[in-house]
Amino acid sequence: MLDCLGGDEGLPAMLSGAVGALQKHADLRLVLVGDESVIKPQVAAFGERVEIINTTENIPLTEHPTQAIRQRPNSSMVLGLTQLKTREDCGAFLSAGSTGALLTGGFMKIGRIEGVSRPAMCPDLPTQLDNQTFMLIDCGANMDCTPTNLVHFATMANEYKKAMGLTNPRVALLNVGAENTKGNEVVKQTYDLLTKLHAAKLLNFVGNIEADQIFKGEADIVVTDGFSGNVLLKCVEGTLKFLFKQIKQVMTQGLTAKIGALMIGGKIKKFKKAKMDTQAGSIFLGLKKPVIKMHGNAKSDTVTAAIEYAISVADLDLSDKIAAALAQVEPYLAGDEQA
Amino acid sequence: MLDCLGGDEGLPAMLSGAVGALQKHADLRLVLVGDESVIKPQVAAFGERVEIINTTENIPLTEHPTQAIRQRPNSSMVLGLTQLKTREDCGAFLSAGSTGALLTGGFMKIGRIEGVSRPAMCPDLPTQLDNQTFMLIDCGANMDCTPTNLVHFATMANEYKKAMGLTNPRVALLNVGAENTKGNEVVKQTYDLLTKLHAAKLLNFVGNIEADQIFKGEADIVVTDGFSGNVLLKCVEGTLKFLFKQIKQVMTQGLTAKIGALMIGGKIKKFKKAKMDTQAGSIFLGLKKPVIKMHGNAKSDTVTAAIEYAISVADLDLSDKIAAALAQVEPYLAGDEQA
Repeated sequence: MLDCLGGDEGLPAMLSGAVGALQKHADLRLVLVGDESVIKPQVAAFGERVEIINTTENIPLTEHPTQAIRQRPNSSMVLGLTQLKTREDCGAFLSAGSTGALLTGGFMKIGRIEGVSRPAMCPDLPTQLDNQTFMLIDCGANMDCTPTNLVHFATMANEYKKAMGLTNPRVALLNVGAENTKGNEVVKQTYDLLTKLHAAKLLNFVGNIEADQIFKGEADIVVTDGFSGNVLLKCVEGTLKFLFKQIKQVMTQGLTAKIGALMIGGKIKKFKKAKMDTQAGSIFLGLKKPVIKMHGNAKSDTVTAAIEYAISVADLDLSDKIAAALAQVEPYLAGDEQA
Repeated sequence: MLDCLGGDEGLPAMLSGAVGALQKHADLRLVLVGDESVIKPQVAAFGERVEIINTTENIPLTEHPTQAIRQRPNSSMVLGLTQLKTREDCGAFLSAGSTGALLTGGFMKIGRIEGVSRPAMCPDLPTQLDNQTFMLIDCGANMDCTPTNLVHFATMANEYKKAMGLTNPRVALLNVGAENTKGNEVVKQTYDLLTKLHAAKLLNFVGNIEADQIFKGEADIVVTDGFSGNVLLKCVEGTLKFLFKQIKQVMTQGLTAKIGALMIGGKIKKFKKAKMDTQAGSIFLGLKKPVIKMHGNAKSDTVTAAIEYAISVADLDLSDKIAAALAQVEPYLAGDEQA
């Protein structure tokens, strides 16, 4: 199911991305939520493979998430999430709309998997190794976290990575140093809990990881609270933008540099695309059904890729797997303050 | 006063950096802490301008800071800090040794300025604007911070920037969004306190800043706790390294790219040097006398630059200015949990 109204590029990008996915995957059926009068003529060729839920109401990015979800029952996001919850023929919901509203809406309309204290935002980020990414969990959904929350994040990401085919995913804890004495109180307690889970063979905890080591490909999952994770994620974005801007400036100073820049500019662009667009969509872990956030500026081909990603996660049975894993972890958390 | 034994490059780099500073500044007097038998012949030409405190003991990077300071009274760092405290003719202490030991040593041997709850690490970082940097405070000294701690950081950095000649420094709070409802509990309370201080004209609070905005040059001071600050600082380093590595790879694939790379490589190196080495030394704010950390891999010219930085801060009267500012701020913090 696709929210056709969210995102900076609006309906045309969503629709063209959807058409791309329908063309590539002959067995794909899509529910498109948006303006029927615009959508219908564009997807007529796909017949019964496409269903349309008609609405023209979109949640503005500036609106407070909880208010938006409560006060806009006819928005594309709320209509989509509400239907996703009950419809067995719907495997996932995708939106490029407000991240906060999507998370809040997922929480309120779909609900948490049993045992999950807090759902989390967890994009995959690139590493310097080819075809290897790592999942950063949480990166903005939960500002104040307890050790229990962080252990839940680790467990959810672990089940996700295993379901995606990774054997024994390496779980690391974001920290300011390698030693177990490092970090704030929450992180130190989390370190001890993850060490216990490692000893019990419930996950593969590889220890602390510092923020300058995350791109080396030595961890498949990096666990942190939503505040630090958000700082980290935005810092990566900001530093990349800053650097590309500076390099561009440097490259256009003087004729030699300009010619040199022409000779390698294409390659750098290609690299940017390959490394920075590794992930078309980012899943919220902890909800009963997959809710996938697309980047606000997602264009047609990114939307197609995100739909393909949704197809791949819809059948993973994540909900049951995460519930089972959390039940196993629970005894080790006894005594820790619950969220 | 210069710790000649700390740092990856050891005594030769420190010594040659010191000689460089002595040559450039005819009125500079230096106390060098290190192996007299090696230092003495090299600085003979400067006569009484150089004093040597003889020791061959250095604090290993791997040693626990508090233990190291307690158990190595004859190390170059402890000898230097102890003398700095009492000697009126010494304006600052510089070291490229263990950051943790230097901070702990500063705290234990020099002591805090009156009213300071916690000293902080606060490097200046580059922005995309020429000749403009911002101070990130704290970035690793204090893991668990109260709103009071954060307000103290803001106040100390504000006094420092003003003393360095900046009019009305713009103070921003690191957060995950622009609105005052964003962030964890500590950050939200800090936002309210800084807003009050702004209304009282005690500092110029410009609001929240997100991690992807820090390079835009819209803030002179970015306030955060030591955990998030450390994550941010290391993330910048890690992302830059990651990107330069990838770009290097891209540039050496194929002949055209290689030639192009040759044509602009020098400019990129120059940019890296100009932007990334903006600061030779980083001050710890909150100690009674300036203690300056040099990068572990500081080489001769960086050491010279750091000594010149030390000269510039030694006469700022920071201690009195910070104490006076904190006394003004204190009434606004009433009721907030003290650190």
